[in-house]
Amino acid sequence: MISMEEVTASAPGKCILTGEHSVVYGLPALAVAIDIRAKVTVKSYENGATLIHAKQFNKKVCLPLKPDRNLTIDKDLQPIYVSVVKTLEFLKIKDGVEVLIDSSLPEASGLGSSAAVSVATVKAVSEFFGIHLKESEISTLSFESEKIVHGSPSGIDNTVSVYGGGILFKRGRILKVKTSNNIPLIIGDTLKKRSTGGMVSKVRENYLKYTAIFKPILAAIGKISLQAKKFLEASDFHKLGELMNINQALLESLGVSSIELEKLVYAAREAGAYGAKLTGAGGGGCIVALAPLARCQNIASKIIEAGGKPYITRITDTGVKIE
Amino acid sequence: MISMEEVTASAPGKCILTGEHSVVYGLPALAVAIDIRAKVTVKSYENGATLIHAKQFNKKVCLPLKPDRNLTIDKDLQPIYVSVVKTLEFLKIKDGVEVLIDSSLPEASGLGSSAAVSVATVKAVSEFFGIHLKESEISTLSFESEKIVHGSPSGIDNTVSVYGGGILFKRGRILKVKTSNNIPLIIGDTLKKRSTGGMVSKVRENYLKYTAIFKPILAAIGKISLQAKKFLEASDFHKLGELMNINQALLESLGVSSIELEKLVYAAREAGAYGAKLTGAGGGGCIVALAPLARCQNIASKIIEAGGKPYITRITDTGVKIE
Repeated sequence: MISMEEVTASAPGKCILTGEHSVVYGLPALAVAIDIRAKVTVKSYENGATLIHAKQFNKKVCLPLKPDRNLTIDKDLQPIYVSVVKTLEFLKIKDGVEVLIDSSLPEASGLGSSAAVSVATVKAVSEFFGIHLKESEISTLSFESEKIVHGSPSGIDNTVSVYGGGILFKRGRILKVKTSNNIPLIIGDTLKKRSTGGMVSKVRENYLKYTAIFKPILAAIGKISLQAKKFLEASDFHKLGELMNINQALLESLGVSSIELEKLVYAAREAGAYGAKLTGAGGGGCIVALAPLARCQNIASKIIEAGGKPYITRITDTGVKIE
Repeated sequence: MISMEEVTASAPGKCILTGEHSVVYGLPALAVAIDIRAKVTVKSYENGATLIHAKQFNKKVCLPLKPDRNLTIDKDLQPIYVSVVKTLEFLKIKDGVEVLIDSSLPEASGLGSSAAVSVATVKAVSEFFGIHLKESEISTLSFESEKIVHGSPSGIDNTVSVYGGGILFKRGRILKVKTSNNIPLIIGDTLKKRSTGGMVSKVRENYLKYTAIFKPILAAIGKISLQAKKFLEASDFHKLGELMNINQALLESLGVSSIELEKLVYAAREAGAYGAKLTGAGGGGCIVALAPLARCQNIASKIIEAGGKPYITRITDTGVKIE
């Protein structure tokens, strides 16, 4: 097998604009790729094994090419390891690789960092061996490691990271949504980790307790996603922002907001955002604010004042790619 | 006409536990009387006119017994004047009265201060002349001055103030709700005045813009009121509190919350309330928190820290009465 000296691939994170949680109940969600990327560099590893070096975790381990059930694998590195192993298996390659991960996405914050890392890993590993996988193949392979991180993931994260742009997601069906490139988004990280599984269970509990109340709430969120898709396509950011605000309140009604998230949301709105809401599972994690470019810096400052860490980013049409 | 030297009546304020705003769309709302009262003392006024002295406004004016269209009447005192005039007309009495108002309810805060003053006025004026009006008559007469304050009032405020206890209100129909006396409530005033009319218009605008989204949200609030009624009757305060929290988020989705209200709501919850929400029209005004007696002081302290003014009160079965 002929291989290059070194290949670097990158993949974008994602941000859910509307419909998290209700998506679990079969209703549509709208997600977009954001221009905060995970970079993965692959080179040959002489010892015929996998060397994973993940900068974001400050961890470096050597693992066998074939998984060994008796081996304890670091929880943070396991999904990366699975991506490497599944890709090599799929490519029928038995050579060792060194994988260097350099992700700018905050971890466990609802921005799809694990999927972006996994997608970039699959791409870098396959291209390193000169094989050009189809986007659908990359998505399927990276989904394997998503299962390890999230239990039963929706598939949104890996899909958005592979294709870029926007998608409307419903019961496993994916509809591509036309977006204008470079729409400014401000992410505000509460710096409080959240557990997706925990939040999904909390909503489920509340849903079973108050079904007659929760059904119409979920239905309302579903309607929001359908309308938000239209406003995104039409670049009507004022209305898209209004829908994000309504969605935020409905997420709060499901029990997944927090005072930390509310503070960032209100700070962004008062600093001139079209709209702001938590993004992802909630409880902690991040908010996303949609805003005119001229207000991004001001919003970022207000997010810092309110106790959060801002990232000024934009919607990107560029999915996984070779750097 | 034989009259006593002086008569004092008092009437309770009200607090909406669930369903404000959605009540405008024909869905049920749950309200209770609270033990913060307006006191009205009536005595004879020798000059054959009406002397109104409202301590809460620090205003004292003399007005004719018969309304004169050419007369400019102070906006704050007009509803009180209307209550006096309508009661005297109903009683066919032409004697002058002096009316002293002493209300502990904050004004324009969603606690039904104007209705409580009006109800106590009707009661005090009629009893001063030795006439015992039926509760329904007091309610009808006080409703006249409510129309002046609120434009098209629901009738909740005067009804609760007359009868005390709890009511479920739907499309003008009133269902009495059994409550245990002395259930602790903590009111937190944002000290920001709100305009009921302005907030109702804002919801209407949003409703017309996003009807498909707002319809299920309003339906969910309606379901909340029906379940809240059952929890109130069963004294299941834990669940009643949960429903208040859900209702708060849905009110926010309608566009009537504010960062000031959110801060008080979260402060109360973090200090151990079963639940907390804005009460009344929103925008400013008050929150209401339901809490175990032992936590009331702590919640009151946290409300002060969060920028509000607390009132520790309780649900009361005692409607309008002679002091």
